[in-house]
Amino acid sequence: MAKLPPLLQQLIDALRVLPGVGPKSAQRMALQLLERNRSGGARLGAALTAAMNGIGQCQQCRTFSEQALCAICSDPRRAEAETLCIVGSAADQLAIEQTGQFQGRYFVLMGYLSPLDGIGPEQLGLDLLAKQLASGSISEVILATNPTVEGEATAFYIAELCQQYQCTVTRLAQGLPVGGELEYIDGSTLAHALSGRKRF
Amino acid sequence: MAKLPPLLQQLIDALRVLPGVGPKSAQRMALQLLERNRSGGARLGAALTAAMNGIGQCQQCRTFSEQALCAICSDPRRAEAETLCIVGSAADQLAIEQTGQFQGRYFVLMGYLSPLDGIGPEQLGLDLLAKQLASGSISEVILATNPTVEGEATAFYIAELCQQYQCTVTRLAQGLPVGGELEYIDGSTLAHALSGRKRF
Repeated sequence: MAKLPPLLQQLIDALRVLPGVGPKSAQRMALQLLERNRSGGARLGAALTAAMNGIGQCQQCRTFSEQALCAICSDPRRAEAETLCIVGSAADQLAIEQTGQFQGRYFVLMGYLSPLDGIGPEQLGLDLLAKQLASGSISEVILATNPTVEGEATAFYIAELCQQYQCTVTRLAQGLPVGGELEYIDGSTLAHALSGRKRF
Repeated sequence: MAKLPPLLQQLIDALRVLPGVGPKSAQRMALQLLERNRSGGARLGAALTAAMNGIGQCQQCRTFSEQALCAICSDPRRAEAETLCIVGSAADQLAIEQTGQFQGRYFVLMGYLSPLDGIGPEQLGLDLLAKQLASGSISEVILATNPTVEGEATAFYIAELCQQYQCTVTRLAQGLPVGGELEYIDGSTLAHALSGRKRF
């Protein structure tokens, strides 16, 4: 193996598109699949091809979906909900969905405003959001963007957009995480927790 | 996304065949490919399919190869070499090849003897190895198996096999790794280094 077989070299290079996979792990993954699990590797190849070609976005909430409307948007009980939760990514939507505490609808931005990277309101589908707000069916918008600079800026932009329509705008509470220890919480989180304190 | 789109769920499940990838990282990988790099994901799918179907084993040394003979076995300068290096896996072969210090031929076991897992001499292609030894073209066999229990046991078995043929059998030196600190080297390595000491 002075030179690797071309198909193996191509596989190692291709594996590096995965997040957190460098040249060494790509080589280990490729060799391990060839040595021990060719059928699993072939299944993964087929699943990737099917998913990359077959998964589009929901026309209403922009989350990943194989149909025009995703499972939530096409659920009649949830389609009537007057609460719209705005999240930055499908993973964030999944995290909220897994709490089991939210029964409303979602709008998935698939990113945050970042003018330097060419991501403006259009790329986040905010025209589609404005249309949904204009329909008057939404009474509360929950801004569930990340508590980061980009997330806050995007939330601020969407909050301004909402002012034109008659709906309440809320933001996820910031404060101490469950199980956290005061001693190790960063200063700005602690400041948020203090200013947002509640009557016991 | 109370329930994920089936193609996405299948992709997440399929990604778990990769070593070191659990449910959380599989989800992150799938979503990141869909969000940011669909063309890379499609390329990876095609590369996996091509590699799993197109890569076989060299008929002579058993390493991964697309042709009947691998690049090393079909290199006339190396085919004449009288030194045969026996390694446990293609990754080990690659590691030795990368030192640039070895110009002989290889034999790749693709595993170690492990009767409990049903891996015996046949599974490691030792009949093929015996045939090559019997041809009389090999004067030295280097046992470059892992310095583990399985590797040592397999090396011992192959050394016995070699006794029937007229060839020298050697084993990779064991001792201190370059850059290691005596203080932190384990006892058995240090014992090997002591017993294998050389005149300065």
